[in-house]
Amino acid sequence: MPKARQLLDAVRPGGPARGLVADLADVVGRDHVRWTAGDVAPFGHDATPLFSGRPDVVVFPGSTAEVAAVLRVASAAGVPVVPRGAGSNLSAGTVPLRGGVVLVLTRLDRVLEVSRDELLVVAQAGASTAEVAAAAGDQGLLFAPDPGSRTVSTVGGNVATCAGGLRGLKYGVTRNYVLGLEVVLPTGEVIRTGGRLWKDVAGYDLTRLLTGSEGTLGVITEVTLALLPMPATASTGVAYFDDLAAASRAVTAILRAGIVPATLEFLDATCIAAVEDFAHLGLRTDAGALLLFGDDGEADAVARDLGRMGDLCTEHCALDVTLAREVAESEALLSARRCTLPALSRVDSLLVLEDVTVPRPRLPEMVDRITDVARRHDLTIGTFGHAGDGNLHPTAVLDVHDEAAVERTHAAFAEIFAAAIELDGTITGEHGVGAAKLPYLRARLGDDQLALLRRIKTAFDPAGILNPGKLGS
Amino acid sequence: MPKARQLLDAVRPGGPARGLVADLADVVGRDHVRWTAGDVAPFGHDATPLFSGRPDVVVFPGSTAEVAAVLRVASAAGVPVVPRGAGSNLSAGTVPLRGGVVLVLTRLDRVLEVSRDELLVVAQAGASTAEVAAAAGDQGLLFAPDPGSRTVSTVGGNVATCAGGLRGLKYGVTRNYVLGLEVVLPTGEVIRTGGRLWKDVAGYDLTRLLTGSEGTLGVITEVTLALLPMPATASTGVAYFDDLAAASRAVTAILRAGIVPATLEFLDATCIAAVEDFAHLGLRTDAGALLLFGDDGEADAVARDLGRMGDLCTEHCALDVTLAREVAESEALLSARRCTLPALSRVDSLLVLEDVTVPRPRLPEMVDRITDVARRHDLTIGTFGHAGDGNLHPTAVLDVHDEAAVERTHAAFAEIFAAAIELDGTITGEHGVGAAKLPYLRARLGDDQLALLRRIKTAFDPAGILNPGKLGS
Repeated sequence: MPKARQLLDAVRPGGPARGLVADLADVVGRDHVRWTAGDVAPFGHDATPLFSGRPDVVVFPGSTAEVAAVLRVASAAGVPVVPRGAGSNLSAGTVPLRGGVVLVLTRLDRVLEVSRDELLVVAQAGASTAEVAAAAGDQGLLFAPDPGSRTVSTVGGNVATCAGGLRGLKYGVTRNYVLGLEVVLPTGEVIRTGGRLWKDVAGYDLTRLLTGSEGTLGVITEVTLALLPMPATASTGVAYFDDLAAASRAVTAILRAGIVPATLEFLDATCIAAVEDFAHLGLRTDAGALLLFGDDGEADAVARDLGRMGDLCTEHCALDVTLAREVAESEALLSARRCTLPALSRVDSLLVLEDVTVPRPRLPEMVDRITDVARRHDLTIGTFGHAGDGNLHPTAVLDVHDEAAVERTHAAFAEIFAAAIELDGTITGEHGVGAAKLPYLRARLGDDQLALLRRIKTAFDPAGILNPGKLGS
Repeated sequence: MPKARQLLDAVRPGGPARGLVADLADVVGRDHVRWTAGDVAPFGHDATPLFSGRPDVVVFPGSTAEVAAVLRVASAAGVPVVPRGAGSNLSAGTVPLRGGVVLVLTRLDRVLEVSRDELLVVAQAGASTAEVAAAAGDQGLLFAPDPGSRTVSTVGGNVATCAGGLRGLKYGVTRNYVLGLEVVLPTGEVIRTGGRLWKDVAGYDLTRLLTGSEGTLGVITEVTLALLPMPATASTGVAYFDDLAAASRAVTAILRAGIVPATLEFLDATCIAAVEDFAHLGLRTDAGALLLFGDDGEADAVARDLGRMGDLCTEHCALDVTLAREVAESEALLSARRCTLPALSRVDSLLVLEDVTVPRPRLPEMVDRITDVARRHDLTIGTFGHAGDGNLHPTAVLDVHDEAAVERTHAAFAEIFAAAIELDGTITGEHGVGAAKLPYLRARLGDDQLALLRRIKTAFDPAGILNPGKLGS
C-alpha cells in the first residue's frame, strides 16, 4: 500500500471517495492535497461575487508530469477538474460548479528565463504577473499586458483568460504576446504549441485558441511571452469634462490626430466621487467625466504627444486639463484609475463589476444606456473603463443582504449585455465568460457558433471533465 | 428545369457529373462556372512549383449566400471544395489534390468600409491586399501586414494563411490585425466571429483559429482588419558585412539598444549577385551579406534611430554603411529586397522557395546548415529573409528538366526542415503548410498534436470536404 494511502484516514463522511484522494496524494504527495471541508472551502469561489461551488479535493501539483497524472486520475474516475491560478478572475471561471478536483497551479511559480536577445520570457503558469513583469524589467524589458489584477494574478491565468488591461489600444491584450505554451490535455497528453518565434504557421493556431479558453480545453503549465524594450519614459495627463460624450469627442480627436496613446481611461461622476472619497487625490468632483491620457516612449515624443493630447482636450471643451510634470504626479494620476474598484467597493457591501465592450464611437450611447438601466432598476452603477478600446466596466454597488436589489442587479446587467450586443459590442471584453456570462453567450454568438464551440470542446475533452459548466458547455 | 441546366450540354466526357455542374450553375449563374479542361486547368495549381491537381469544376460565387449554397451542394454530393483567392500562396495550399470544386473568391472584391474613428477596414475576402492598403492609405491609415505577394494577393488569402511579411518584428503578422471574420462552415452555416473590437473574449478565439487555417476549417468571406495611423515618415539604410554571422551581431546590438525597427532584412551573397544582375542597383557584390535596416514614425525619431542603427552596424564590423537621404533612395534600397525573388527566378528555370524560422540568435547557425546542405547536395541555394524575426527563405534555383536535381532539392529541404526544428525553429514561418509541408508537420508537432489538429478539423468539417489533403488531414 503506498504510503500516502495510510495517511488518509481523515477523509470526511460525505466527502470525496477515499480512493480518489489517495490516488491524488500518490501523484502530488500528501502535503499537496486538501480534502477537509475547511481546507477546500477557499477554493469554492474566486474573485467573482455571488458564485460558489464546493470542491471535493484541492491538489497542488509541483510539475507538469504531476498535472498530467492528476488529469489521468480524474479521467479514470470521471471526476471534474477545475484548473486555477490565483483565482483573481471576475467571471466565476474557476468556480467548481460540479465539485471534483480544483487543480491549483501556484506551486509552478518559477520564471524560467528572460532573453534580452529574443525579447521573451519563459515562465511556469503559476508565476505571478508582477514577478514576470519585474524579471523582464530587470533586463530593461516590458511585459506589456497590464490587467487590473496584475499584483496577484498568475501569467497562466492571464493567458487562460486572455487578460486585457489599461494599455489595450496601443499594446493589445495578452493574446498578442503569447508565443508558445506547454499544455496538458484533459486526456493527459502534454503538448507544446508555438515556441519562441514571432512567425510560425505550422498547424492550426492552438496557441491562440488556448489563450482565452478559460481552463476548458487544457491545463496551461508553461508560457513563453513576448516582451518589448522598456519605453524610456511615460507620462500622464488628466482632463475633466461635463459628460462622457464630451470626453469621447476628445478621444476621437486624439486618434484622428494620429496618436495611439498608451493610456486613455475614463471615470464617470460616481467613480470620481468614490475615488476622491477613498484616496483624496484632489479630483474635481463637480465634473461628469474624467479622462486620463498618457503615452510612453522617447522623452521628447512623449512630451510632444502629451501636450497635443492636452490641447485637443481643451479644444474639445474640457473643463480643466492638467499634465503631470514629473513621474510621481503621473503615478498619482494613474492610481486614481487603479483604485477605482477598491474605492467603489467601500460604497456598499456588494460590488458587481461588469465588462462590456462596444465600438469606440458608441461609447457615449452605451453609457447613456447604462445610466438609463440603473435609473429604471433603482441601482447605483458607476462606470469606468478603457476609452481607447471601448471596454467599459459598469459596476453596481448595493447591500449584499438586499435580495430584491440583487435580483434587480441581475435584471439590469441582462439589459446591459443586450444593449452592448445591439451596439455591435460584446458581453465581455477582458474578464471572460466563466459561469457568470455563459447564460448570455448565445445572444452574442448564435446557435451555430455555440454548437461549434461545443464540438471544439469535445475535440479537446471528449469526456467533458475539464471545468464543466463553463465555455464549451 | 432551371435555365442553367439547359445550358450545360457541353459537359465533357470524363469530366464532372453533369448534375453537379448544373447544381452549381443554379447557385452562381451560368457565367460563373467553368468545367472544360482548358478553363479549369489554371486553377489546378497555385504559385507553388511542382504541385498540381485537376479541378472538376471552378465556381466564382458572387455573395456569401452563394458560397454557402455551393458548400451545401458539394456537401450533398460528397465532393471536395478548395477555397482560393489569388492563388499566390507558396505552400500548394490551394492545389485541388483530389479534384472537386475550386471555389474562387475574387468576385467578392469590395472594400466595404474604412473607419478612421475605429481604425479598421471591412472588406470582402477577395479584395486585393493592395486595394485594401490603398483604401486605408486614402484615410491616412496603415494596413501593417506586408506580405511579399501583396500586389496580387487577396486579404482573405492573407488571413487564411496568416501572411507575414517584411515588418513582422515591429508590427507582427496578419493574425495581429484580424478583428472579425464572416465565415461559411463546410456544412453551409454562416457565422461571424469577433467583430470591430480590440477586446472581446466571448467564446473560444475562432477568429485566430481560422486565421492561418488555410481553407480547411471554413471559407472566409469577409474580414474586419485593424489599421494604424500612417507613420509620418519612413527611411532605410543598408550595411554590408563579410558574412551573415557578422550581420546578426549587428542585429542583436540594434535590438539590445532598445530599437525595434520596422525593417531588418538580409540577403546572402547569392541573392546580392542575382539582384544586382537583375536590377543594377549598385549593390556591393563582394560582400557576404547585405542588411537592410529601417524604421518609420515621426521624422526626428526615425532619423535618430536610423543613425543609431548605422553606427551600430559600423561598430559591428560593417564593410560599408549607407543611409538613404531621401524617400526615393529608401524605396530603391527596399526594392533590392522586394525583387530578390524575381531576380533569383532568372538564374535558372525552377525556383523552390522555402520558409523556415529559427530563434533570432540561431540565424547564423541555420544559415551555416543551409550552406552545408546545399554543398552536399550540389545545389545553388540563395538565402534571404527577415533578420528581425528569424524567418529565412532558402531558395534553390535549378533546371526544371534536371530530374536528379529536383530529387536532390527535395532531399536537401527535408534536411533543412529537420535542422530548423533541431534549432527550436519551425518548418514554415509565413507561407503555410498546404500540401508542400504536410509531410514534415509530424516532426514539428508530434503525434499527439497532429491527432488534436485532426479532431479540430472534424469539429468544423465532419465530412472532410474542405480542402482535403492539407492541414488537419
